[in-house]
Amino acid sequence: MPEIRKDPVFGRWVIIASERGRRPNAFRATGADGVRACPFCPGHEKDTPPAIYTLPAGDGPGWRLRVVLNKYPALDDRGAAANVADGMYDRMDGIGSHEVVIETPRHDLELEDMPAADIADILSTFILRANEIKKDPRAKYIMIFKNSGCNAGASLAHPHSQIIAMPMVPIRVVQEMDGARAYLEENGKCVFCDILSQEAGIRKRVVGENDNFLAITPYASRFSFETWILPKKHESHFERMTPELAMDLAAIVKGTIKKLHSSLEGIAYNLIVHSMPAQEPGAEYYHWHIEIMPKLNQVAGFEWGTGFYINTVSPEDAAEMMNTGKKCKL
Amino acid sequence: MPEIRKDPVFGRWVIIASERGRRPNAFRATGADGVRACPFCPGHEKDTPPAIYTLPAGDGPGWRLRVVLNKYPALDDRGAAANVADGMYDRMDGIGSHEVVIETPRHDLELEDMPAADIADILSTFILRANEIKKDPRAKYIMIFKNSGCNAGASLAHPHSQIIAMPMVPIRVVQEMDGARAYLEENGKCVFCDILSQEAGIRKRVVGENDNFLAITPYASRFSFETWILPKKHESHFERMTPELAMDLAAIVKGTIKKLHSSLEGIAYNLIVHSMPAQEPGAEYYHWHIEIMPKLNQVAGFEWGTGFYINTVSPEDAAEMMNTGKKCKL
Repeated sequence: MPEIRKDPVFGRWVIIASERGRRPNAFRATGADGVRACPFCPGHEKDTPPAIYTLPAGDGPGWRLRVVLNKYPALDDRGAAANVADGMYDRMDGIGSHEVVIETPRHDLELEDMPAADIADILSTFILRANEIKKDPRAKYIMIFKNSGCNAGASLAHPHSQIIAMPMVPIRVVQEMDGARAYLEENGKCVFCDILSQEAGIRKRVVGENDNFLAITPYASRFSFETWILPKKHESHFERMTPELAMDLAAIVKGTIKKLHSSLEGIAYNLIVHSMPAQEPGAEYYHWHIEIMPKLNQVAGFEWGTGFYINTVSPEDAAEMMNTGKKCKL
Repeated sequence: MPEIRKDPVFGRWVIIASERGRRPNAFRATGADGVRACPFCPGHEKDTPPAIYTLPAGDGPGWRLRVVLNKYPALDDRGAAANVADGMYDRMDGIGSHEVVIETPRHDLELEDMPAADIADILSTFILRANEIKKDPRAKYIMIFKNSGCNAGASLAHPHSQIIAMPMVPIRVVQEMDGARAYLEENGKCVFCDILSQEAGIRKRVVGENDNFLAITPYASRFSFETWILPKKHESHFERMTPELAMDLAAIVKGTIKKLHSSLEGIAYNLIVHSMPAQEPGAEYYHWHIEIMPKLNQVAGFEWGTGFYINTVSPEDAAEMMNTGKKCKL
């Protein structure tokens, strides 16, 4: 089973999951071959573990969305959530869960081409599953994300997202919470609420807006064309979203990915939900949001060594290109 | 000129360097075409800024190593090292330096195929340049690294390394120092000295050793086949290394890359020197070392969102494969 090990310098945890190395990488098979080999396509339901949750097709037999356990999980629910010393090191069993949301029966339907109502169904599924998973008190953090495209780390082309429940709050989230808490202590306000009001005022980095959400290219973008989507009303937990908000979020996600792909044709991206740790109450300092990171450049030695990113397109230029549909020639 | 911007949540700094977007990506040109287009090959010296430092060829005219300023620098020495408020945000001029070490006149000579004495020359050049650069008190951190291969972020195939001087200590380094300091406070010892004695004892993760250095696959490896090279004697600053140590380091770097490539043919990698901030005195808690990170998998949404890495090859298996020359079939 997977094992979680702690780095003694950084305190960061690493999952050692040898079984996951055996998963298929069917990305190169395209067209009819791709569909034939795809475990997420209709008719291949036996190639995945049984569905945990299904949305039936509106117009006949079959399904329009399925949630299944990952066949090659990063974490699973065997084992105990206890630390074990290993010489000077610490490790624990890789306890948790790893679910896959198969977003559509269609092998090649990208998010931006789906009706907004279908995207709202995907978001509502995230909310439903997160609320179910967090009933287990061992689920300290629930990570919801989508890797779109081989360069973004997806091993299968069929549109899907992932939900991973972890037995600890990961270090990057701890750092984000610490930073946001420090900002509140110093400024008396939520940092994300401040970003919202500043960006809505100057509008140099706005790439989308509706009643409930604002999409921006953040001031200190690590990646060219990085985009954040923030709810206008302060809320710490993604999974507390109402159906009305989910519909507005679907619309702005669709619009943002469409703009991204108009400037960077076919670009791979990661979409990540940033939310409060599952077992903690809502807090004035933390504000859930979505970060979309296009994979334009390889992250190189400098970034790994320093956590100091080099971005060759300013967020102001990226926003202008996205808003005018200008192609980026990087 | 480049601009440095601070993320208001994490406190991480990002370099916005639009000019760097114009650098050539000549990676795809190979063979005679690659040499013809390569600004680092002999005869093309006018295609780079003038040399800062040169090692002459031992056997005739020309050079065997050159150091030049990066033509498309991430940071340069114009501008002032002062913070400026930009609404709620902070930014500063992208002050610093960005040098390129052209390691050999030969376009296709990989590190592992060079004589160890030539690798020692490269390392001695790093030491010499770092000691020169740190005379400028604005150089708070000096980052020395090598991206080998297109998948590791190299934009040119000709063997080269980079030296970037920065006007602040980057956040990842601050976190590493904090972690190491906390370990010393709790355990009374340098964490890297403890790792050395534990790993030299159990030997499950040792991939190389000589009088002055140990190479290991670390216990909590983020990446499959990640390897660290540590000096056996405690020292905080890389640039204080003696010529005798540089020779031993050259031998173990060569041996490690050779083993890495025997298990993972032609794999791209980042090699990063981790050292104490340039202007700080040596410290009992920090121990310089080198981290080599092969680029086997794309870093995907999960890793970006959490700082929580999934590694599908345990460091014990990776060490065994490297030591027996067994090919990895990932």
